[in-house]
Order: sequence, then C-alpha cells, then structure tokens
Amino acid sequence: MNPVRVIERKRDGVRLDPAEVRDFFRAYQRDEVADYQMSAFLMAVVFNGLELSELEALLDVMIHSGATLDLGHLPGPRADKHSTGGVGDKVSLTLAPLAAELGMFVPMMSGRGLGHTGGTLDKLEAIPGYRTDLDLDAFTRVVEDVGYGMIGQTAEIAPIDRRTYDLRSVTGTVPCIPLIASSILSKKLAEDLDVLLLDVKVGDGAFIADRGMSDRLARTMVDLANARGVRTVALQTAMDRPLGVAVGNGLETDEAIATLKGAGPTDFRTLVVREAAEMAALARGRDGRPVPPDAPAHQLAPVVAEWSERAEAALDSGAAFARFLRNVEAQGGDPGACEADGPIAPAAVVRDVYAREDGVVTEVAPRALGRGVVALGGGRRKLGDTIDPSIGFEVLVAPGYEVDGGLLGRVHAASAEQADRAERILRDAIVLGVDRPEPLPLVLGRVGPDGLSPSEPPAE
Amino acid sequence: MNPVRVIERKRDGVRLDPAEVRDFFRAYQRDEVADYQMSAFLMAVVFNGLELSELEALLDVMIHSGATLDLGHLPGPRADKHSTGGVGDKVSLTLAPLAAELGMFVPMMSGRGLGHTGGTLDKLEAIPGYRTDLDLDAFTRVVEDVGYGMIGQTAEIAPIDRRTYDLRSVTGTVPCIPLIASSILSKKLAEDLDVLLLDVKVGDGAFIADRGMSDRLARTMVDLANARGVRTVALQTAMDRPLGVAVGNGLETDEAIATLKGAGPTDFRTLVVREAAEMAALARGRDGRPVPPDAPAHQLAPVVAEWSERAEAALDSGAAFARFLRNVEAQGGDPGACEADGPIAPAAVVRDVYAREDGVVTEVAPRALGRGVVALGGGRRKLGDTIDPSIGFEVLVAPGYEVDGGLLGRVHAASAEQADRAERILRDAIVLGVDRPEPLPLVLGRVGPDGLSPSEPPAE
Repeated sequence: MNPVRVIERKRDGVRLDPAEVRDFFRAYQRDEVADYQMSAFLMAVVFNGLELSELEALLDVMIHSGATLDLGHLPGPRADKHSTGGVGDKVSLTLAPLAAELGMFVPMMSGRGLGHTGGTLDKLEAIPGYRTDLDLDAFTRVVEDVGYGMIGQTAEIAPIDRRTYDLRSVTGTVPCIPLIASSILSKKLAEDLDVLLLDVKVGDGAFIADRGMSDRLARTMVDLANARGVRTVALQTAMDRPLGVAVGNGLETDEAIATLKGAGPTDFRTLVVREAAEMAALARGRDGRPVPPDAPAHQLAPVVAEWSERAEAALDSGAAFARFLRNVEAQGGDPGACEADGPIAPAAVVRDVYAREDGVVTEVAPRALGRGVVALGGGRRKLGDTIDPSIGFEVLVAPGYEVDGGLLGRVHAASAEQADRAERILRDAIVLGVDRPEPLPLVLGRVGPDGLSPSEPPAE
Repeated sequence: MNPVRVIERKRDGVRLDPAEVRDFFRAYQRDEVADYQMSAFLMAVVFNGLELSELEALLDVMIHSGATLDLGHLPGPRADKHSTGGVGDKVSLTLAPLAAELGMFVPMMSGRGLGHTGGTLDKLEAIPGYRTDLDLDAFTRVVEDVGYGMIGQTAEIAPIDRRTYDLRSVTGTVPCIPLIASSILSKKLAEDLDVLLLDVKVGDGAFIADRGMSDRLARTMVDLANARGVRTVALQTAMDRPLGVAVGNGLETDEAIATLKGAGPTDFRTLVVREAAEMAALARGRDGRPVPPDAPAHQLAPVVAEWSERAEAALDSGAAFARFLRNVEAQGGDPGACEADGPIAPAAVVRDVYAREDGVVTEVAPRALGRGVVALGGGRRKLGDTIDPSIGFEVLVAPGYEVDGGLLGRVHAASAEQADRAERILRDAIVLGVDRPEPLPLVLGRVGPDGLSPSEPPAE
C-alpha cells in the first residue's frame, strides 16, 4: 500500500478497494501514514465521499483498532441509543434506566459537551461523586448488576477514530456524512449491541442544521449498522427549539431526574417514552419476537404503543427512578442528592424573566441558548475547560405560546452581573411576533434499513 | 487569522481575502499552521482552485518568504526561461549561453530530475568539477562576469515554496494549476527578471500530458508574471516524443555541447534558436524597443526572425560555445572535457539497436524512455539518490521515419546484462506500424497575456 497513491485515487474519484482503506488506516495507527497525509485524504473524502464498500471497510478498521465489549453472557438483549446532539438534550439520563427497566441491558458510552451542545458525561458529573471513568471491567459489572452503565469513550475503544476525530476538528474535515457516520458507529458498535436507536436531530440547534444532510446521515448509519447485524433505526427529532425546559448541565440533570420521578416537561417525557418503546420493539418485540427494523408501520405501531404504556408506567411508578438510584450508587454518586427535591447544583442567583411586550412566541433559538451557557461558563469551548454545572436557563415558553406579559423563563447565574448578561441572552433567543409559527413535529420521521422504510398498512 | 476557518472557507468555495492567504502561509512558515492543516488546505485547493486575487497573494507571500536577487545594476536586460520538463529536454544548457551571447543576462536557477524527466542540474554535473551550489553572492558575480550562471534553488530562495512543494509531493496535491504556477513563478520571480520565457511541454512525456491543462497552466503563469511587471510569454512545445536524440544526463550534456559547436539534432537546435529569439524580442526588441508580450504576430514575427538569424550565427561561429566555456570555468568545471570530442561520461557498454522489421515509426514513447533511464540507474526515484550520468539512450528515429531494418538507436549501459534490459526498453518505446502518424508540431502555440494573444495581421 502506497499512501500517496491511495490519496491520489480518492482525489481522482476512484473507488478504493476495502483492503486499501484498511491498510491505509492501519498504517496510520502505526504512524506509517503521517497526519498530513491523513488530513489530505480526509479532505479528498469531504469532496468525493465514500462508497458503501469503502465505508464498511473504514468502519471495520475503526472498530477493530481497539478493544470491544463482549456482553454475550448477559441474560437479555443489549441496546443503546446515540443522539447527534442538541440543546437541552438530556434524554440519555432518563432513557437508560427506563430501557433497563423494560428488560434491556444498556452499556452506554457517551461524550462530553463541546460547543453549543451539552454532553451526557457533564450532566452526570453534576451528581456529587458520580464517576464516568470506570474501566471496561468495572463498567461491565455495573451493566450486569444494574442493567445499565454510563461511561466516556475510553482510550481502549476505537483509538483510530479518536485520533482521526481530533485531526478532523483542526483541519476543516468535520462536516462529512461518511466520516461522521463511521465515527459515531465505531464507538457504538464496539459495545456488542443487538439493538441501536439513533436520534438524529434536525434544526438550528442541531450539529447538522440541514434537513437533507440529516436524512443522508440517518440513512447511512442505519444501513451500515444493520449490515453489521445490529438492528438499528433512526428517529429524526426536532431541534428547532430546545428540548424540554432546562438548558445547562445541573438544570438538565434535575429535569431528567424529575422525569424519572413521574413529572418533567411533556415534550421531553414524550420523546424519552417514544425512544424507549422503539428500542424495546427492536429488542424485545412481542411474545419474544423482536420487531425487525424494516417492519411496516401496521406491524410496528401496536408494539410501540404497548411498550410506550409500559414505559409510562415505569416512570409513574418510580421503578425507573429506583433503577437510576442503583446506578448512581454503583458508579460512586450520591443517591441522596438525587432523591432530594432541590436543584442538584444550585446557582448563586436565580432570576425570573418576564416578557416586556405581548405577542406570540415565533422562535426560541436553541443555538443562541447553547452558546449562552458556554459564554457564561456553564459549557466548554475546548477540551479540558472546567465547567460550572449551576449555570443555565429554564425556558418556560415554546414556539406558538401566547405571551401576555408573563414569565418567559429563569436564568441561573453565578452573580447579579452575570444574571444581567444571561437575561439579555434569554430575551434575545425568544422572538415574539404576530403570526403563529409552524414548529417541527417532535418526531419528524423514522428511518429504517435502505428501501424498507415503514409504510402505511396495505389497503384491503 | 483562524487556520481552521481559512481551510473551511476554501473547502466551501469562498474566495479568501488576500490577507487571509498571506497570513495563513506566513503562519505556516512560523510553524503556527501545522503540516496537517496545510495539506488539508492544499487538497481543498485541488478541488476548488484559487481565484486570481488569491493566487497573486500566494505568489507574493512565497516570493517574499526568502531572499530575492537584486540585479538592477547589470548593464542589460535580465531574462530567463523555465520549462515544465520533458524527456530529452536539455534546452537550458544551450540556451543560457546563447541568450547571454545575444545581450541578455541570465541568472538561471534550476531543479534536479525526479521521476521520468531529467533535471538541468544533473546534466551540468556530468561536467567534471562543475558546481551548482554557489551562494547567491558568488552566483551574482558569475552572472555579471559571464552573462549567465546556473545554480539550484538554494534554501534562501522561496523557502515556503520549497516546504509546500515537499508536502505536496507526499500528499497527492501536485497536479493543480494554481499550485504549480505559484511554485514555478515564486522561484523565477525571485531572480529580479525583466523577461521570462515559459516552455510548457505538451504530450505523453510532459509532466502534464493533458493539452487543456497545459493551456490553463500557460495562461495562468503568463498572466501572473506579467501582472508583476515581468514581460512573459509561453511557448507550448511538443513532448509526444523525446526532444533531440539524447536521453540520459551525460548524453544530453554531449548533445547540448554539440549544438553549441554548431551541430546537434535539428529539432533541438530549432527549439533553442526559437526560444532565444523570443527572449531577445521581449528583452531587446529592435532599435532598443522591446516587443511587448501582447504584440500582434505581424509586429513580433520579423523581430523573432531577425534574432533567430543572430542566434544561428552565434551557434555556428562558436561564440555561444566560447561563452559556455567561460561559464564552465567560472563555476569550477573542466572546460577541456567540454572541448574534447568524446562523450563527457562514457558508458561501459554502447550497443547499436537495429529494427527487426520494416515499417513506419508511429510512436517514440518519451515517458517509457525517461522511466527507463531511472530504472537503469541514470535517474532519480527519490531525492538523495545518486545517479550514473553515463546511462541513457540515443534515439535515432522519430515518428514518421520509415524503418527498413536500419538503426533505431543506441543504448549506453553499465554492463552487457544492463544493455539487454536497455535494449528491451528502447524496442518497446519505438512502435512501428503502417499508417503515417501525425506528430505534434515542434511549437504548438504561443501564449501572451490574457486576451491579447498574437493575432494575424489585420486585413488592409
């Protein structure tokens, strides 16, 4: 394998042999392909893409560049979820114990927040003592004992992906469907899963704002993961406004816990229940027969409805919350802090923000709020930054709400001066107007394997 | 200047500000932009190109990244030639003393051979003792005293270009018009020239085989150099067969010297004379009035004809050869070795190769011969390889020749075994057939400044 020749062929639009892709990335891992060659190759991929056979080879070499979990001994289906990330997206914290309560094992490896979207690990670490740096053996034991565990991507998992991702972030090669898809899946498919649910966010607050690109990313990941034998579907969900009320790490943890206690904002609870039910349909189905990812709607819908009811019950009964507390304890956190009613990370200043005029809320800009949290010290500009979990916003209106001088939200800040700044950010993010807006539906679509999307029941 | 932002903008097809281009490359020189960022940028340029304003900024920052000559004190016009390189292209060795004899000062900085095309420095170094590593002061003195000097690109000249070129050669970013144009011109325009003649080779044996790409390269370089005040035209010349008879460093030096003595192959002598006359027209013109590069053909042609006659006379009289000997002496070489009639680097084995069948020569494949010289140890695969100047081919037929069992050529080799291999290479490169071929004319075209190519004389 001549690295320059591989770069030239990709540059010239030639389809690479799977062995070339594999050898090129393995040589990179051995430092026989230099960073400057990899970055040129990645830029050529940004322009010319990867065909399916190339992408499968890339995914394969990334997964097998490091350790993979071996969870075949668990007495039930293994399932996980990945979200492309959005503002207010605290789904994992509530979904993982709920899915465990529905009979799945969830070995969830998550990321940290960077830029305007938050990270699951940062939210978990708002819980005093909670550790997300377990080694793979300890993690596996937690999954066995509690039904789910939550850690970060360790250095053992998909190290080529980690190195390639770091390189992409400084060489302008991030926004590229095949590179994003292989990066996400290399970590998830190292978890030895039966089932994977992908939450692809769409809208201004998503990593990818463009609908067409979200479609292609969802389709690409669903096809790749199913081809590897992991039953996978994607839900495309709304990120034209924040999800739920809370934006900011401590506040989002509070909201995830409140939802586990049977309360929580309706949109957030609805999405968590839907995702848990989709996972359960793929993992457990009905009568021990999992619903295949390419099932038609008339076959899927009743199973999802049944699991949705069970999920609602698990939230309302406190069973999912009890599961959550067992995990907090197993991972070194303080269950008492989660059982208490107050905020898990109280801010120095909490201020109500009222509307100064009347009107209809036409927009709640998620990206502005996510960036606001970062600007106020509650998020991360670059890896290694420390963050203040008490900082954030409660957004009490949504597009379509009529505001009559009422409460828009609350800011949580470290000082009165910072609260002034936070208030300006919140006011700027909430746009009032006259015409009623048309926000995206909470779930825009569901993407199954290629050519086999759910269809309407056949006419009789 | 944020390097990632610059890469992203080029990736997305945005025209960069000249200051961004300048700052990005200056930061690269200071090691504040990494090689892996530069290579990603260069690959984005391969796909999205550079607009004129970007290219002008790039050329400017490359020239001013190092030393430039200051030759304003010389009592005559400064002129040079650059060839994009081909098989058998020993033009510089003959042209430089001829141009000096025609009243120009020629401060020529050349390259080494790499791959199938030879390099001027390698040919010069076949002359015992000849030094091409003079420092800029010594070089300037040789140009003053002899009228011309010949050295390699020193580390002082255009160091960003040198570093960028090295990076391009290992990252698949070589074939890109704006990058080639700025690389060539950054070295030539550091020579403080009045006049530049570009020889853009076209055909299988050229660095760029594609005619359309040659056109664009010629136009781009001509426009850029004229915009900087250097009177510049390009000749597009045939490289569908080797130039002249000799292929291989020592043999080519012999041929260049033979031509300076008034002999030499017709095609080679014709091209040298034409190039010298074009340079003289631009540099000296008629009655002290240089012909502008955008002169119409009826104004240009008689001046070129006049200088062609003077060039022929300077070759036939031995004046150009005397000038050559003065340069050899000034640069440490052995003039006696050049005055002698024998080969400058005799090979151990010289073998005549006769045709085994009759027919018309339909092709003499230059690339195969150039690669053959490399394969036999007479050229360079990578920088630092030592080369044997005695190795090579004399090609005694050209496309269109009728072969009647006659001599095809001679191989010059280090052993009988190697001569066998060389013979096979020569036989494979010479294709015999029935139909008379249509080789390219020696000079295919002349490219002046944008929109002002020479036209036919206006009808009266």
